[in-house]
Amino acid sequence: MKTFDQYAAIANEAIANIKYPEQPSGLYAPIAYTMASGGKRLRPSLALMACEAAGGDIQDALLPAIGLELFHNFTLLHDDVMDRADIRRGRPTVHCKWNDNTAILSGDAMLTFATQFIAKTTPVRLPRMMELFNKTAMEIYEGQQYDMDFEQRDNVSVDEYIEMIRLKTSVLLGCACKLGAIAADADEETADAYYKVGENMGLAFQLQDDMLDVWGDPATFGKEIGGDIMNNKKTFLLINAVNLAKGDDAAQLQALIADTNAQRDIKVPAVRAIYEHLRLREMSTEAINRYNDAAVECLDHIDMSDEARKAFTTLFSRLIKRDK
Amino acid sequence: MKTFDQYAAIANEAIANIKYPEQPSGLYAPIAYTMASGGKRLRPSLALMACEAAGGDIQDALLPAIGLELFHNFTLLHDDVMDRADIRRGRPTVHCKWNDNTAILSGDAMLTFATQFIAKTTPVRLPRMMELFNKTAMEIYEGQQYDMDFEQRDNVSVDEYIEMIRLKTSVLLGCACKLGAIAADADEETADAYYKVGENMGLAFQLQDDMLDVWGDPATFGKEIGGDIMNNKKTFLLINAVNLAKGDDAAQLQALIADTNAQRDIKVPAVRAIYEHLRLREMSTEAINRYNDAAVECLDHIDMSDEARKAFTTLFSRLIKRDK
Repeated sequence: MKTFDQYAAIANEAIANIKYPEQPSGLYAPIAYTMASGGKRLRPSLALMACEAAGGDIQDALLPAIGLELFHNFTLLHDDVMDRADIRRGRPTVHCKWNDNTAILSGDAMLTFATQFIAKTTPVRLPRMMELFNKTAMEIYEGQQYDMDFEQRDNVSVDEYIEMIRLKTSVLLGCACKLGAIAADADEETADAYYKVGENMGLAFQLQDDMLDVWGDPATFGKEIGGDIMNNKKTFLLINAVNLAKGDDAAQLQALIADTNAQRDIKVPAVRAIYEHLRLREMSTEAINRYNDAAVECLDHIDMSDEARKAFTTLFSRLIKRDK
Repeated sequence: MKTFDQYAAIANEAIANIKYPEQPSGLYAPIAYTMASGGKRLRPSLALMACEAAGGDIQDALLPAIGLELFHNFTLLHDDVMDRADIRRGRPTVHCKWNDNTAILSGDAMLTFATQFIAKTTPVRLPRMMELFNKTAMEIYEGQQYDMDFEQRDNVSVDEYIEMIRLKTSVLLGCACKLGAIAADADEETADAYYKVGENMGLAFQLQDDMLDVWGDPATFGKEIGGDIMNNKKTFLLINAVNLAKGDDAAQLQALIADTNAQRDIKVPAVRAIYEHLRLREMSTEAINRYNDAAVECLDHIDMSDEARKAFTTLFSRLIKRDK
């Protein structure tokens, strides 16, 4: 077994070696630009880790794993068009650097390109990998649709929110773990157990992301703090705050939500103070720990070396303590 | 063998039987809407025809063939966003009926949904079908990119135009024929010969489309005549006209191209008259006949029943004589 950073280095090298056709450059340059913008490479690294934990050779997982990273970056590319986001990982997004049409079309090409990488497996593994990948992709679109639907709704429940982030974020981490297990020719029950590990970890991961938007350090976070707060995004924190706030807290929170002209340096600290008053920081941390524990428990049901188990739990600890 | 209309009826029935998930409706309703808007169903029908001609059972081609129709309609959905087209097959386009974000996301889902249908084949055929489909999809994006690039260029040659329409339109007809042959377990050489049939037919088909924009009957064409002329779209006709026009024709054509405020009922007949004066109607018809002959010649190299050959040539004749 290797450390997460070693798996990430292997994924990064494979990504750096991707050959993009030169022409038409308007189609392929935005894909190369997107893939060169870095990121944690969490999904392919997880796939490699799961493959080795399940007794496989990481070379059998590598190209499909890169397919997952291509897919993830395609979703970010199109999401940035839909969200009108200008900056991603410190650089202009594709629709800002080029234009909307380029972002739409090169995103489409990126999805098919990702599918081509998933298909770079042996014929015998292809049906399982392709079914897993396509199903996961559909769920992710569903998650994005619910996320957009929630913007128009005032009564989103915590359960609905958790289901939305499960679809939008967690299933791809589950898919990465299962894909690695399939590359190791694990049986379906074992592969599904790997899926559950990634799925639970993904929920912890996204709740941690919600917290970073509120309590992250602007110097390390990579994007501005308080974006969710400014957009009244219905996160785990805001939904719970609206449910739990009483008296002055409730009145102030509703006023802050309703004030469309609020200054960032006023609104963000004010909402944060309400969250803290309601002890939502502790409540979020507890929820994250619960999902983390669930991931560890799923791990306990899988037959793997202590070294492999340690690699996963080390990664979990790192993800839920991360600052970016 | 059946007639084209019979294959189209089988495809239409399978399309009508597609089950779309109900929720989230913002994601799936636009897909169902798009697929219910009709169309010739040329691609799946061709796949079924090729499958039977190659000695296969059309049930083995049917679901992947529907995947091609889903894919084709996905490309139209996203192209309509990029081209800001409001009407398709007499109905509002998805981005007009809903909005751009819905069109982007449901288009993405439609591409993955199409891929899922392609994958509804036997494990042994999956690698060939998946490779063919993904390669074709990438070429179609390339064609769309070249089409958009050409809008910014003044020196597009006839050869470049033909290559663009080959990518944007013909390869999917080639893919449909080859996919049918693969469903019949044809060897690679035979399957490639089927591909060539579709590819040549596709070039004839697109040149006919260019002609319909100029000389089509508005009552049967389904969209307004002269759209390409009004947009100065660099079609086979306009590129040749610019190359061939001399004296008064050249001056008048350049003035019509430069006039951004030209009235439709003035510009369309004026450009049409120049095309006719330059005998481009005859020149286009000759080019169409050449590609049609090439498709027939490719057919001659494939071992199939006279009945199957007749089904293809009857379809060719109909396509190059079609009025919509």
